[in-house]
Amino acid sequence: MFYFTIDILGTIAFAVSGVLVAMEKKLDLFGVFIIAFVTAVGGGSLRDLLIGSTPVNWLLQPVYLFTILGTVVLTIIFRPHLKYLRTSLFLFDTIGIGLYTLVGIEKGLEAGLSPVMCVALGTITASFGGVIRDILCNEIPVIFRKEIYATACILGGSSYFLLRKLPFEDAYSYMAAILIVISMRLLAVKFKIALPNIYRKAK
Amino acid sequence: MFYFTIDILGTIAFAVSGVLVAMEKKLDLFGVFIIAFVTAVGGGSLRDLLIGSTPVNWLLQPVYLFTILGTVVLTIIFRPHLKYLRTSLFLFDTIGIGLYTLVGIEKGLEAGLSPVMCVALGTITASFGGVIRDILCNEIPVIFRKEIYATACILGGSSYFLLRKLPFEDAYSYMAAILIVISMRLLAVKFKIALPNIYRKAK
Amino acid sequence: MFYFTIDILGTIAFAVSGVLVAMEKKLDLFGVFIIAFVTAVGGGSLRDLLIGSTPVNWLLQPVYLFTILGTVVLTIIFRPHLKYLRTSLFLFDTIGIGLYTLVGIEKGLEAGLSPVMCVALGTITASFGGVIRDILCNEIPVIFRKEIYATACILGGSSYFLLRKLPFEDAYSYMAAILIVISMRLLAVKFKIALPNIYRKAK
Repeated sequence: MFYFTIDILGTIAFAVSGVLVAMEKKLDLFGVFIIAFVTAVGGGSLRDLLIGSTPVNWLLQPVYLFTILGTVVLTIIFRPHLKYLRTSLFLFDTIGIGLYTLVGIEKGLEAGLSPVMCVALGTITASFGGVIRDILCNEIPVIFRKEIYATACILGGSSYFLLRKLPFEDAYSYMAAILIVISMRLLAVKFKIALPNIYRKAK
Repeated sequence: MFYFTIDILGTIAFAVSGVLVAMEKKLDLFGVFIIAFVTAVGGGSLRDLLIGSTPVNWLLQPVYLFTILGTVVLTIIFRPHLKYLRTSLFLFDTIGIGLYTLVGIEKGLEAGLSPVMCVALGTITASFGGVIRDILCNEIPVIFRKEIYATACILGGSSYFLLRKLPFEDAYSYMAAILIVISMRLLAVKFKIALPNIYRKAK
Repeated sequence: MFYFTIDILGTIAFAVSGVLVAMEKKLDLFGVFIIAFVTAVGGGSLRDLLIGSTPVNWLLQPVYLFTILGTVVLTIIFRPHLKYLRTSLFLFDTIGIGLYTLVGIEKGLEAGLSPVMCVALGTITASFGGVIRDILCNEIPVIFRKEIYATACILGGSSYFLLRKLPFEDAYSYMAAILIVISMRLLAVKFKIALPNIYRKAK
């Protein structure tokens, strides 16, 4: 129940971000829905395919499809208000990243993978929905260009494996790791922390 | 045999549409073949991957590969004539959509999925070959922008589940649903029926 | 051990080519790593997904991840020197193609596929890493446009099935087929051999 709630919240957060990108590209109603859908389930589906957990989750649980459908309708209706709310959208997206990173790690553990690969799966779950969204919209994925996004997933995800060694209940470590991913991204944006520039020598 | 014939006809229809898009982009012979191939088998392969039906169909049945190869050669040779035949090409593509939608639904039923997810799989089978084709050719997929394409799949696919409840043989419901998908798209194009515009308020 | 060495060499060769393309697009450090990663493991992962061999290889063997990580760091550091070495990079890429084609064929044989489909899988293994790299970088994949690349995979791969019928040990046929792929591409580039032009009539 706990993990399920987290999963649905992440789905809503990512679906909203998908609708906004698709509407900037002036896609039609179906296009907007598909972009919202792949943004929300793309990372998780790629993860499920890579570990061989098929049929993928959303085919078995219609709740994801209907959640995304409802989110798309509400986002389109309330979009004129949303555009004054860039901050809350950024928050939504960041919360989605935190939630999905840990969902992905959990699935990796269930599949018996090593911690390093669990963190890789968590990062894929959190970031590849956005990558597929950007590819479908004919853009170079935004996370390859300017955001401390995956770094937050990797460090926050790794922290989960450290926290698990402490004598807390697993749900606390889980929540704490989600908060670490979220705060790392918020702090990075606030203090404009970026990855080291690898192009310095080219100047 | 019945389903197999339908599948091969859909394969030819989509391969032709792939060749035409690839040649507009001036791809080389191999590029044209690959685009034709992914247009024809891409939707079905994605469907097979999502439900975990692997190895995917075309790896086990070389007939698809050879059908596409033959279609590519013939389409390239007769292309100077085809360009005066836009209408028949549009027909081909529309027939392919109708056929593939029902093939996808059938596979979903075999995998024990709910009707809603079967319709989703049918739509993916019919439309994602074209989506992958457009991505490989560096375009925003055409079905996200202007065509009543997926809508025909969704409504026609849903009608199959209603028709099945009537006291007909299944093959008749199947054929009828294919015809519904095809006629919906033809009527939509003829009468310029489009999805409701979600950008009105932006004016 | 023999196959493993070949696999790691191919991984390094493709990771280097990924770094170079990503840096031309001015991606950030994470973007460069992901492009190098998908270039190196993308073709093999697609192959594994299509035949249903999951979890995909790199999730089970962390050596690939660490090899690519090391290759990325070294390539970024030594890049100012590499750019004077276009020839050796082309060599790297060509060696990678030869190696991966045969790795893919081997996996196809293990999955019990027909020779034609094994060659198709080998070609996918060798070329789709580069295709995914180009899509992520928002380019029409280079192999669809100008290079005798897949042709070398297809002919070299087919030669393996002929060589196997000769009374040599399998490892020799395997090495010979790798060399055939590599030499075909080198000769094609040297003598500017291209696929037949299918656009002549359009002039």
